[in-house]
Amino acid sequence: MSTSIFEIITIGNELLIGRTLNTNAHWLAKRITELGGCVRRSTTIRDDLDEIAKALKDSLKRGASWVMTCGGLGPTFDDKTLEGVARFLDRELVLDGLAMKMVRERYDEMAESGVLKEVAMTPARLKMATIPSGSQILRNPIGTAPGVLIREASSTIVCLPGVPSEMEAIFDGSVAPLIKSVLGKVESREANLRISGMVESDLAPIIEEVIRDHPGVYVKSHPKSIIEGSSRIDVHISASAKAESEARILVQETVKQMKKQVVERGGYI
Amino acid sequence: MSTSIFEIITIGNELLIGRTLNTNAHWLAKRITELGGCVRRSTTIRDDLDEIAKALKDSLKRGASWVMTCGGLGPTFDDKTLEGVARFLDRELVLDGLAMKMVRERYDEMAESGVLKEVAMTPARLKMATIPSGSQILRNPIGTAPGVLIREASSTIVCLPGVPSEMEAIFDGSVAPLIKSVLGKVESREANLRISGMVESDLAPIIEEVIRDHPGVYVKSHPKSIIEGSSRIDVHISASAKAESEARILVQETVKQMKKQVVERGGYI
Repeated sequence: MSTSIFEIITIGNELLIGRTLNTNAHWLAKRITELGGCVRRSTTIRDDLDEIAKALKDSLKRGASWVMTCGGLGPTFDDKTLEGVARFLDRELVLDGLAMKMVRERYDEMAESGVLKEVAMTPARLKMATIPSGSQILRNPIGTAPGVLIREASSTIVCLPGVPSEMEAIFDGSVAPLIKSVLGKVESREANLRISGMVESDLAPIIEEVIRDHPGVYVKSHPKSIIEGSSRIDVHISASAKAESEARILVQETVKQMKKQVVERGGYI
Repeated sequence: MSTSIFEIITIGNELLIGRTLNTNAHWLAKRITELGGCVRRSTTIRDDLDEIAKALKDSLKRGASWVMTCGGLGPTFDDKTLEGVARFLDRELVLDGLAMKMVRERYDEMAESGVLKEVAMTPARLKMATIPSGSQILRNPIGTAPGVLIREASSTIVCLPGVPSEMEAIFDGSVAPLIKSVLGKVESREANLRISGMVESDLAPIIEEVIRDHPGVYVKSHPKSIIEGSSRIDVHISASAKAESEARILVQETVKQMKKQVVERGGYI
């Protein structure tokens, strides 16, 4: 099993009724890719215990070495992620001392600044410190619910909150360093070409040839609508390698071949 | 099996490397919900034949009566959706007369307007008219690749292109009318409350009580960051029913109870 295979699971009914645009999955996919990880699949599910447990099981079965869940760590009844994780792993949910300390500190801060009147550890607050046994707590520098990291066999499950700023802060502070230490240094380079005077069906055989000649380079065409009688296609070319120079040369050579072929067949770049 | 259970499958590496924000899944989820459908899951997968076939199989196994795929209908080598569908359904891929007529008309138009020099039906162009046998073609009013609809047992698979404007046009023109005819008329009403002076963990038991009293109404809290010492939570309340009045009353009663409880416990709306 490759250590670089990731899956993302975003949890929340608001995503499935089209109320909230899933910017979290997009942000995570971008950051993981930059770190050299390969996001194989991204799944959005409801706030439902069985769905959460089932989605995790399927991700691990497909060979993901990292599963990043996002959402469902808060205090409300429909925040069910950790209960779903515990069910899937067949672990107990336990009140964690460090997590409780973090949650309490956060409420004390809010009380001091006048946001909050009452700092009692109500059941809803204790819920955010109740985690699957054997988990590791990830500090939430700007919100209340901490993130949670759980190792299971050779996979790592990371549970992040759904509030974007909190998710991003925990990822950058606690998760990215860990991913880096496992995957090592990875350099990525990319180029974007804007091609006109050509429709996508004529560009298709060119891309096919370029990819055959440069395996490992990622090339994808994005046709834009025809505007004022002129067709336009954006082409994204990217490569990753251990050395920056290697990634750069891969992209440069691909761009060069692509440009030559497009111009030869009557297109413009 | 309920006729209103939908799954969305968005296909494209660009979504999994974080290059493209998945607005298609969001748009589809919103429209399907408005039509009275229930989107149970949304999955994003790579441009990979086995992944496409496997994702479709899993969706139908989970009991989806509608699966909407998005992306991978174009002319390039990595547009693999219809081949994946054919593989999953064990059907032949056949060159469809109507689809070929549509594709050809589109290229003829482009040639007339000067966008295109060459109107030959190249392999890349024929690819867009090659569909699983027994499919129904859905007219693409603004692009080249038509949509495809396939019935399998009691489920319907709809394949839409990934260019947002084309996807939306085919959905609104050909798919929405069909969904409406199956699901009947559905009216939805919603309300958004902005609550301050209260943190989410204190709102949690109120929401729990409100939902218990109003089953069928959807209530979800979205905590916002604390700004200038004041906490804010947005709460979204929605309900669907056969009659507009029924949906409206459900939402109104829920809002009323919610406001009362929040104010009683020291919050503001």
